[in-house]
Amino acid sequence: LLRRIEQVSGLKEKIVPDGLRLGIGDDAALFAGRRGYETILTCDWFLEGLHFLRDKHPPDAVGWKCLARAVSDVAAMAGTPRYFLLSLALPSTRTGYWLNEFLRGLRRASNCFGCILAGGDTTRHQKTLVSVTVVGEVKAGRAVLREGAEPGDVIFVSGRLGEAELGLRILRRLRYQAGKRNPLLRKHLYPQPRMALGRWLGKSKLASAMMDLSDGLSMDLSRLCAASGVGARLEAESIPTVRRSGSKENEGLQLALHGGDDYELLFTVPRNKVKWLSRSFRGTPLTAIGEITRERILLLQDVDGRIRPLADRGWDPFHEARKP
Amino acid sequence: LLRRIEQVSGLKEKIVPDGLRLGIGDDAALFAGRRGYETILTCDWFLEGLHFLRDKHPPDAVGWKCLARAVSDVAAMAGTPRYFLLSLALPSTRTGYWLNEFLRGLRRASNCFGCILAGGDTTRHQKTLVSVTVVGEVKAGRAVLREGAEPGDVIFVSGRLGEAELGLRILRRLRYQAGKRNPLLRKHLYPQPRMALGRWLGKSKLASAMMDLSDGLSMDLSRLCAASGVGARLEAESIPTVRRSGSKENEGLQLALHGGDDYELLFTVPRNKVKWLSRSFRGTPLTAIGEITRERILLLQDVDGRIRPLADRGWDPFHEARKP
Repeated sequence: LLRRIEQVSGLKEKIVPDGLRLGIGDDAALFAGRRGYETILTCDWFLEGLHFLRDKHPPDAVGWKCLARAVSDVAAMAGTPRYFLLSLALPSTRTGYWLNEFLRGLRRASNCFGCILAGGDTTRHQKTLVSVTVVGEVKAGRAVLREGAEPGDVIFVSGRLGEAELGLRILRRLRYQAGKRNPLLRKHLYPQPRMALGRWLGKSKLASAMMDLSDGLSMDLSRLCAASGVGARLEAESIPTVRRSGSKENEGLQLALHGGDDYELLFTVPRNKVKWLSRSFRGTPLTAIGEITRERILLLQDVDGRIRPLADRGWDPFHEARKP
Repeated sequence: LLRRIEQVSGLKEKIVPDGLRLGIGDDAALFAGRRGYETILTCDWFLEGLHFLRDKHPPDAVGWKCLARAVSDVAAMAGTPRYFLLSLALPSTRTGYWLNEFLRGLRRASNCFGCILAGGDTTRHQKTLVSVTVVGEVKAGRAVLREGAEPGDVIFVSGRLGEAELGLRILRRLRYQAGKRNPLLRKHLYPQPRMALGRWLGKSKLASAMMDLSDGLSMDLSRLCAASGVGARLEAESIPTVRRSGSKENEGLQLALHGGDDYELLFTVPRNKVKWLSRSFRGTPLTAIGEITRERILLLQDVDGRIRPLADRGWDPFHEARKP
């Protein structure tokens, strides 16, 4: 089947360049790391019923998103994706149209992110299971970790938050498979990892800590703070939310705080460096939403100035029964 | 959960050494490749119902084997395993005893193979799903691929073939969970990848092509031959099989030809170098079982001298309904 994946997808054509000596077809892939670079390694599940719904997610969006999610982890370390391994388990009934569409989306993502299929493992299963491993690289010393945030640092996010979660809610209400071109669903179906921004934040050495937002701002910020041994205070007013006509008051803020799948970057900048950071990067807004504090709790300052603790209510498969 | 995996398993203690700069807990793992080495990358599924049975496989064997399988791919390229990523999906009911035992087996394998947990992804699922990615290294130019076999080369295997398949058959007939100490099941439950042998074959430059036997000799040899653009003729008499008292005539040969999960090495040696190869390596027999031919078919020479085509009837999840 992996051979067919090469053929159907044309992914193999792209294997020759760079340091990759050997792609699909041997026991393993083989590549030479570049001198002066470190290798980044990450993997991500993408499971039917948990991360996508068989009847509602277009298969090409499944192909795009399974790679985009893992690439986003590389972007969040200021790295560049290079190769990926695809572990795919499918029912026999899915090896026709569904697989072709899946591979079309995957190929588009592979081209767009410059991330080449280097191997994988395929097997049969009642449900569609995907696990993607991405290998990236970053110049030695340039990786931005979660652990560098210091009290006083300003907290930034890229883009607008909550849009993907809103798209998911709309998609769940659909009776049929989602249309690929629905602009309200675009960010949920075809997320764009912030690769160029991540690299620039690493190169410019402006960010003291960074991660990508996959499980919701409240959950992910608490992880960044835990890694750095600090706390944070957010200003509700500053958080870039989605506005919908006729939406309940506060809905946008709740989506932005606790909605998952944004794949925006969350990063901290020392106060004396904030002046070097412009308020947008290649059209993507960069917004200051609060600051890092010494006390290890998360606080949210409401629009009326009241400060209250912020619970981390993002996506955790073992604590919530939430599904896509 | 990944944090708990560190704690429960103690796997994290091992993270400091070598080139690994950053393990579990950030967006991705980060490591520096050694100069003069190439990086090997491979991943393997290990799925409940397909690769192991919930009621019959001891959970520590699941932990051991999911890593051993992927490490075997690195051994088959003459490499040394370094790090692994664990993608684990579990039902909530399995996060107690089952997970602890699984991690015990995984930790034992990690220690035994010198392969360190560097990260991963965990989530919830109705069935237990495991995907393991292993990163290894090999000195530049020393990797042994599948594609180097030439007509006239002698075909070798390590160990005895069919033992794991026999163990699987015995296990399937059990009413309860398999005993960990049953010697007939050992090779099926706790396979030992041939790391030292693989490395030595790469260093000595004796092997012209190599792969590991995971899906059965007939299937895997046909893959090696396809990669090298050659065929092969095997001698039934020479193939090292399992002998059981009271077994049907020919049963041992059938197990050896088509049984999966052996994780022995299959390699070819140019005829003029065969004299440099001893007939055992650290107690593991190395047996010549046939030769590479120009004509691109697989032939089997029977005990009575008759030559017939050999069908590849090994493990292929999309063609057979066979299950563990």
